[in-house]
Amino acid sequence: MRIVVDVMGGDHGPEVIIDGVRLALESGARITELYLVGDEGQIKTALKSTGCTDSRVRIVHASEVLTMEDKPVEGLRRKKDCSILRAVDLIKEGVADALISPGNTGGLVAASTIRLRPISGVDRPGIASVIPAPENEFVLLDSGASVECRPTHLLHFAIMGHIYSRDVLGYSKPRVGILCNGTEPNKGVELTIEAYRLCKMVDINFIGNVEGHDLFHNKVDVVICDGFVGNIVLKTIESFARGLAGWLKDELKKSPVSMLGALLASRALTTIKRRMDPDAYGGAPLLGLNGTIMKAHGSARERAIMNAIRITTDAVQNQLNETIRREIAQANARIAETKVASAL
Amino acid sequence: MRIVVDVMGGDHGPEVIIDGVRLALESGARITELYLVGDEGQIKTALKSTGCTDSRVRIVHASEVLTMEDKPVEGLRRKKDCSILRAVDLIKEGVADALISPGNTGGLVAASTIRLRPISGVDRPGIASVIPAPENEFVLLDSGASVECRPTHLLHFAIMGHIYSRDVLGYSKPRVGILCNGTEPNKGVELTIEAYRLCKMVDINFIGNVEGHDLFHNKVDVVICDGFVGNIVLKTIESFARGLAGWLKDELKKSPVSMLGALLASRALTTIKRRMDPDAYGGAPLLGLNGTIMKAHGSARERAIMNAIRITTDAVQNQLNETIRREIAQANARIAETKVASAL
Repeated sequence: MRIVVDVMGGDHGPEVIIDGVRLALESGARITELYLVGDEGQIKTALKSTGCTDSRVRIVHASEVLTMEDKPVEGLRRKKDCSILRAVDLIKEGVADALISPGNTGGLVAASTIRLRPISGVDRPGIASVIPAPENEFVLLDSGASVECRPTHLLHFAIMGHIYSRDVLGYSKPRVGILCNGTEPNKGVELTIEAYRLCKMVDINFIGNVEGHDLFHNKVDVVICDGFVGNIVLKTIESFARGLAGWLKDELKKSPVSMLGALLASRALTTIKRRMDPDAYGGAPLLGLNGTIMKAHGSARERAIMNAIRITTDAVQNQLNETIRREIAQANARIAETKVASAL
Repeated sequence: MRIVVDVMGGDHGPEVIIDGVRLALESGARITELYLVGDEGQIKTALKSTGCTDSRVRIVHASEVLTMEDKPVEGLRRKKDCSILRAVDLIKEGVADALISPGNTGGLVAASTIRLRPISGVDRPGIASVIPAPENEFVLLDSGASVECRPTHLLHFAIMGHIYSRDVLGYSKPRVGILCNGTEPNKGVELTIEAYRLCKMVDINFIGNVEGHDLFHNKVDVVICDGFVGNIVLKTIESFARGLAGWLKDELKKSPVSMLGALLASRALTTIKRRMDPDAYGGAPLLGLNGTIMKAHGSARERAIMNAIRITTDAVQNQLNETIRREIAQANARIAETKVASAL
């Protein structure tokens, strides 16, 4: 399997990314070639300092970087030789099978969509973030790729999320729900009401609308929403988790007795911390495009990059895009038949 | 001050609500009359069992209840003698100054909007939920009253939230932000982009767009969104907090050492638990109507009801609605002037 990593654009610089690549190469026998895209000088320095001498590594020079400050489409137009575009092109040209990037999300979505185009039958790509809950983990889709959506987009997210949860996360019959302000079919906005109707018509385990209350209580495995809502929900959860962890630490530090208590309870605290750790997945796939694209967190460190590469190879291994193409085609056919039938 | 409490429709029955009323009466000298609306028999029994003999209590019989299962508008049409309608009418007729209800949110919003009408200049009411964060507490508005919104609605939520944070919560210069998927003015959807433009024009401390990331890091005091997004965000936070608390408890119970640790760290844990406690506010005001209306949590217990009554009397005391009427009129005038100016 041939993997591309865009080493620029992460918050911690190329060295951290490349050290993550080294870890992945050491543990991942399935990788045959690994392309590092970015500034050649910086990559060579980082390879030296991290002691990575793996013969599977290839360097692809890119003279520019799309930063977090750049506006995606405008930035891509201006920076023709940026690492994201060069990395996406390696997928487009068939040089590599999958891409991981910790850079500007909007830039990655725009570059991949423009160059790779959506899978036949899919209108819009969606980012599938995996969020750990006490008793399960759920996929939140779309968590920020497609900000304004039509009902068909949500339908396609539902199908793709169902496939991702089933084939990559291993849930045999994932429960798919539309995120809404109430559970009744007539609750919500035009978008969700129509998407509900469409989801009922296709062959997924659709459980209807779910509320925010349901997310962390093992009631749903795939949570569907537009990218505006998904992005807000994802970031709110991350903000709350980080705020709470910092707060707990501060309170525990206030007295020696509390600190001793924390020490004794450390196994319990560590179990939770480890499960809540965003680095456990390290990345979220951008589903629905002709190519396997993984968005790593901008703040991803070594372990996160290693894990992002691992789940990317899983996705390629599982022929995720082939399955998406097939099941989307089936669903679209079902919807079209029903339309014809109701028109007769 | 004359307070109405709809004692029906809460998850735990009238007795719990009435015991909360008793606590409020014992601590609240500002109350002159307290109307309990609901089934007279049940109220009398509850008054006896809770030992409430306060002479300020009045009973108003209502033979029906709008349950959580009832569809709001349809339910109100069918159940003319339900407690919510009877309670709202006491405000409309000037018999009482403010109302607290733990019942069906949609029913309370519909009954209050239909009978009391919005404050002149306001189009739609919004629920202002107060959410505790480590270093501040922020108002989330609208958390579920107005599911589909226009930009002017968000503008009015911003003004009302600003007033509530300043006059009731005591933030001298509350930071108001629009909840969005990015901070740049051009980020978001049509609704938020236009609302951003309007908020810039009026006299509030508008800090622009905020992301989910900002919520729990003391960056914003009033978070503006439509009721669809707000309801999802509020419930997601509640779900996450409850999920995490339960999970922590389960993990700590797994070994005697952890349990001892938790005991030693109990002061720190209790501090956080107390601050995160939804009962501390007990209710969220429905802002923008001709009347002071407080939505108590459906699951509200005694202390939550007592606190909901306390913040309700604060709101009345502060002449919140007078201020809303005045500042909304000023803002609307400002927007109209700018429109005229730009048309010249």
